[in-house]
Amino acid sequence: MHAPDAFPRGFASDNFAGVHPRIMEAIQACNHGHAMAYGEDAVTGRARAAFDALFGREVATHFVFNGTGANVTALMAFARPYGAVLCSDVAHLCNDESTAPERFLGMRLLPLRSVDGKIDPGALADALGRAHGVHGAVPVALTLTQPTELGTVYTVAELAALADLAHAHGLGVHVDGARLGCAVASTGVSARAMLAGVDALSFGGTKQGMLGGEAVVFLKPGLGPDYPFHQKHAMQLASKMRFTAAQFEALLEDGLWIENGRRANAAAKALEAAVKDLPGVQVAFPVESNAVFARIPVPMLAPLQAETFFWPWDERAGLVRWMCAWDSLPEDAASFVAAIGRLAATRPASAG
Amino acid sequence: MHAPDAFPRGFASDNFAGVHPRIMEAIQACNHGHAMAYGEDAVTGRARAAFDALFGREVATHFVFNGTGANVTALMAFARPYGAVLCSDVAHLCNDESTAPERFLGMRLLPLRSVDGKIDPGALADALGRAHGVHGAVPVALTLTQPTELGTVYTVAELAALADLAHAHGLGVHVDGARLGCAVASTGVSARAMLAGVDALSFGGTKQGMLGGEAVVFLKPGLGPDYPFHQKHAMQLASKMRFTAAQFEALLEDGLWIENGRRANAAAKALEAAVKDLPGVQVAFPVESNAVFARIPVPMLAPLQAETFFWPWDERAGLVRWMCAWDSLPEDAASFVAAIGRLAATRPASAG
Amino acid sequence: MHAPDAFPRGFASDNFAGVHPRIMEAIQACNHGHAMAYGEDAVTGRARAAFDALFGREVATHFVFNGTGANVTALMAFARPYGAVLCSDVAHLCNDESTAPERFLGMRLLPLRSVDGKIDPGALADALGRAHGVHGAVPVALTLTQPTELGTVYTVAELAALADLAHAHGLGVHVDGARLGCAVASTGVSARAMLAGVDALSFGGTKQGMLGGEAVVFLKPGLGPDYPFHQKHAMQLASKMRFTAAQFEALLEDGLWIENGRRANAAAKALEAAVKDLPGVQVAFPVESNAVFARIPVPMLAPLQAETFFWPWDERAGLVRWMCAWDSLPEDAASFVAAIGRLAATRPASAG
Amino acid sequence: MHAPDAFPRGFASDNFAGVHPRIMEAIQACNHGHAMAYGEDAVTGRARAAFDALFGREVATHFVFNGTGANVTALMAFARPYGAVLCSDVAHLCNDESTAPERFLGMRLLPLRSVDGKIDPGALADALGRAHGVHGAVPVALTLTQPTELGTVYTVAELAALADLAHAHGLGVHVDGARLGCAVASTGVSARAMLAGVDALSFGGTKQGMLGGEAVVFLKPGLGPDYPFHQKHAMQLASKMRFTAAQFEALLEDGLWIENGRRANAAAKALEAAVKDLPGVQVAFPVESNAVFARIPVPMLAPLQAETFFWPWDERAGLVRWMCAWDSLPEDAASFVAAIGRLAATRPASAG
Repeated sequence: MHAPDAFPRGFASDNFAGVHPRIMEAIQACNHGHAMAYGEDAVTGRARAAFDALFGREVATHFVFNGTGANVTALMAFARPYGAVLCSDVAHLCNDESTAPERFLGMRLLPLRSVDGKIDPGALADALGRAHGVHGAVPVALTLTQPTELGTVYTVAELAALADLAHAHGLGVHVDGARLGCAVASTGVSARAMLAGVDALSFGGTKQGMLGGEAVVFLKPGLGPDYPFHQKHAMQLASKMRFTAAQFEALLEDGLWIENGRRANAAAKALEAAVKDLPGVQVAFPVESNAVFARIPVPMLAPLQAETFFWPWDERAGLVRWMCAWDSLPEDAASFVAAIGRLAATRPASAG
Repeated sequence: MHAPDAFPRGFASDNFAGVHPRIMEAIQACNHGHAMAYGEDAVTGRARAAFDALFGREVATHFVFNGTGANVTALMAFARPYGAVLCSDVAHLCNDESTAPERFLGMRLLPLRSVDGKIDPGALADALGRAHGVHGAVPVALTLTQPTELGTVYTVAELAALADLAHAHGLGVHVDGARLGCAVASTGVSARAMLAGVDALSFGGTKQGMLGGEAVVFLKPGLGPDYPFHQKHAMQLASKMRFTAAQFEALLEDGLWIENGRRANAAAKALEAAVKDLPGVQVAFPVESNAVFARIPVPMLAPLQAETFFWPWDERAGLVRWMCAWDSLPEDAASFVAAIGRLAATRPASAG
Repeated sequence: MHAPDAFPRGFASDNFAGVHPRIMEAIQACNHGHAMAYGEDAVTGRARAAFDALFGREVATHFVFNGTGANVTALMAFARPYGAVLCSDVAHLCNDESTAPERFLGMRLLPLRSVDGKIDPGALADALGRAHGVHGAVPVALTLTQPTELGTVYTVAELAALADLAHAHGLGVHVDGARLGCAVASTGVSARAMLAGVDALSFGGTKQGMLGGEAVVFLKPGLGPDYPFHQKHAMQLASKMRFTAAQFEALLEDGLWIENGRRANAAAKALEAAVKDLPGVQVAFPVESNAVFARIPVPMLAPLQAETFFWPWDERAGLVRWMCAWDSLPEDAASFVAAIGRLAATRPASAG
Repeated sequence: MHAPDAFPRGFASDNFAGVHPRIMEAIQACNHGHAMAYGEDAVTGRARAAFDALFGREVATHFVFNGTGANVTALMAFARPYGAVLCSDVAHLCNDESTAPERFLGMRLLPLRSVDGKIDPGALADALGRAHGVHGAVPVALTLTQPTELGTVYTVAELAALADLAHAHGLGVHVDGARLGCAVASTGVSARAMLAGVDALSFGGTKQGMLGGEAVVFLKPGLGPDYPFHQKHAMQLASKMRFTAAQFEALLEDGLWIENGRRANAAAKALEAAVKDLPGVQVAFPVESNAVFARIPVPMLAPLQAETFFWPWDERAGLVRWMCAWDSLPEDAASFVAAIGRLAATRPASAG
């Protein structure tokens, strides 16, 4: 017997959520008999075919353990030992993945100024114009996050403009799509259309409702021919691959990943609507996916975290992040919002 | 609906097996509500406590994705940029893990001569006696595999002698216990007693019946204080950790891991007994765990692989490896042995 | 017979200068007989003693090939695989040394906002206050450049304040002193007093008048005990070390390195004085060592470079760098300044 | 005033020797005026042209600091992150260059069995036949040493056979020619003919009479286009390059490098002749270049080292190495040989 180990749904992170029932079912369904290891099994074949179907043509798909593993091994396709990867200054890759990029890629990250989480095209142009021969790190790839780390979503035009600029300078273009379903649900634009100019993709699994696993998808034909070798030396190759692949097969079936994104987005919109007019609370960025960033009076932070745990984004500035997950429901916000309202009402008039 | 994706139990690899039902049950049991990510949840706490109980004192336990990840991050505790890790010349670390050791540890592997899979103590002494100042790679750790890659099992005395020699030269001692349960089941010696002189351990999950996951256990008090940082930059930190931890909790409960090892060992013994007297078949190493290595006439290889897939170990030498898994049953061997017998009987008298 | 291979002294870089005659003499003087290799010779012993004398106590001194080698191997004393090195956003380390820091240290560089080339203490405090557990790169060292990349010189108080702040957070402090003699000559403060709170130093050789070679000096007692191993695997250990050491012995004898800095500084001051009132020319930063940065009308750049080659610092902004060297003489500026004046006079009134 | 810092010519290492007078003269000759840094100067151009002339066609030549730097950066042309470099088990690269190969190349070294210092072609064939998919390190290059570490010299046919085998498997072929002049002097075969099937070369400077510096020469057209970037991030790019280049210009002028090799070889031959019939002394390998390896009674080792310092090669086995240098003279051997004879005569009859 296992006692309860978890707590009610909150707004800390989409990593706090569990596994979608249809995905859990898929895991169990493939647990019989023996299967080839390391991805040479039938389930992996089918999950790859599902990605081909998603993009309407043959793409090269590989399944890895986690988001850092996906980002870093995908970028390996563009790596040169004297290279640099351009990213947003709020990118997960540069703020939340320790030194994995430096140690595995052996390259530098060059963070670019962002506005509401989106890379400023002027900052990209500046960085691309600063050639320094053998003395500087040479930009080899641009990575974008969709939706961004701040919950905003690039329009197709914005994404294409950045990708075109990067391509014009010979760089590869990668998208970190840990929550791509939220972007697709938010814009109504298909992954295929949204990522038309993108070369390599980290397609999220864990945050989109899986137990664990991410997909690396090479959209540009011919890219990443030696990816399996990189995946292996990067310690991102699962032996019992069928269990990761089965999750992806279920995640893509009938657009479950988009449905999950839609639910998370809706919960975020409900939360935004409920808090945006509370005194002292200010929504910080456009709510375009499953995140609500807000500025709240600093003294409210601790009591509110005691209600339900969440992370401050910038503690000193009173900036907080509330994330919704695939299992969030609009009504989840009710007691949380009530607590916010209660705290907002009781703080001294002079505060904030 | 998911069609059958697997095939009957064979002897290719313990990685071909699925997930033990009690472990699958544990995965499902913790799939409710939200939980702290990255190992700060209650299930992870309990799984760690289970390792404390196993070793009869507090040890430092961390859960990673795969065997290479466990080996490499565990060895990070001993790493120096100019260092070398001594290992058996048949070690998984040096033959099956690509360049992960060089790239993540940034060190050299120095393979030592082995006899029936066990490191020759003379070879270890030789390597330790070859100081070369700043010019050579400096040995910093010894890694042993228990059971060995060839299915043999170090006695407690053998293991202690190697560990003592390494310690006497200031090296750390690591054990790769991907199939440790087979060694415990085979010898009847507890993990605690068997690993008395060992500093760091890779405790297998995947091959011992889990869906996926390995544990790194620091047995030497105080070792690896910054392991969590290494785990993160090595891309081996799962966000939904509770699902890995729950598997380990179930694996350790009532000694399931040893029971799984016992079953695999028994199947190997049955296979050995059935083939050892067949004409042309020669068991190559003592069968002390779940592997049977045999020399067979080269022409038998292909037709036998057609019966049930397995890997040749050294194709040119006719050396093959037959692995049993946690779900192997002694009767599984019957039709396979029959096929071996049939092929052995029909080959020309002059062969092999 | 060797034909002339060089051109007259200009203002491109102190790397364009040759070798000071007293240093060349020292090289020749030790070219007789055989000597122990790799630094176990008598000359190396004497050069080390000269550094002890310079700092008034025993310090640990090592001689390497070049500036990047010195910076990177010195910082190895503070390295952790998940670490970050804080530096100025105009530091040579982060703008002119390719990906050597990432590849050799395996760490991240975190550039800090600078003012006139000096790290803004507020930016340092901010960076040190941003802890992010295992998820972010952990600051392990601060590196400062003295004089700065922009030719300014930290006061003793400024340098101490930054070092104290870094030490208070457990970081090591390194100074890149590729042109340290210019700073000492400029301030009149001894190296010993100037670097009182510094742990590790790159002491320049090449730019201070040598043929080639830099010194790594550990000022903090006990620091860098395994430096010789790092030096070796970093490919920075010369076999015929006596020839590098002899240069340093001569460089330190009678303060030649400070005399060289004084001459370069004087030439820069002369140049500044001659150009600062020319129409359209604006000196960009305080001239406190051997560099003059100026903003000039963009159309003047090409014709002026044709007079004597120099590097634009920021071509689009018309920012240029004029460097003086140990062999620069105040009168060198005459024809160059005349050219600037001529070009300034002839540009259309509407320009710039 | 500089006191004597060196000792008489001995047999410890060719690294103990000083700088050939013609090379020292070239260093001084280019010490006037300013010159472009980092190899864009006229002297570097001329030194490169000298290598073109040596090989009778345009080759790509780069000048680095030391032998490890040359080997590792040259091999970068073939590097893949999951790759392995095959080398002799007595190669300098694998025994005397610390972990530089692992850390800079990020690859594994796979040492091959050698006979008298030469790679056994059977061992190479074996290693090339052991494919292991993504699981093993993938051989990408073969490196040979000419002359070998044990003083033997590959014939043109031997070298071509190994190179052909490597090429047939898609590997690049590199030669470590730290003492190439000895091989050319020994065989009478030109570098051009000797290295016909070689792709990349480390051409020695330091051991061939220079103050310091090695050349990397890409013999295969089109190889190493981004070498300058690798050279920079590997910290092997000198700023005052003219002084390294001038040494190479002098070294190649009138075949000085071969003349130096010839002198060293002659001294080795004289030494061999003088010791080979002494009681208890056994020359271990054919003396084909500037090294004499001998087995001597272990008790003779210490007193003999006291006469003139040299390194034991394998102390326990009584194997010693005596190296001659560019400045060795046949008569240098006299007092050394006398000492050997004296010690050999006085040791007890029962010894060795």
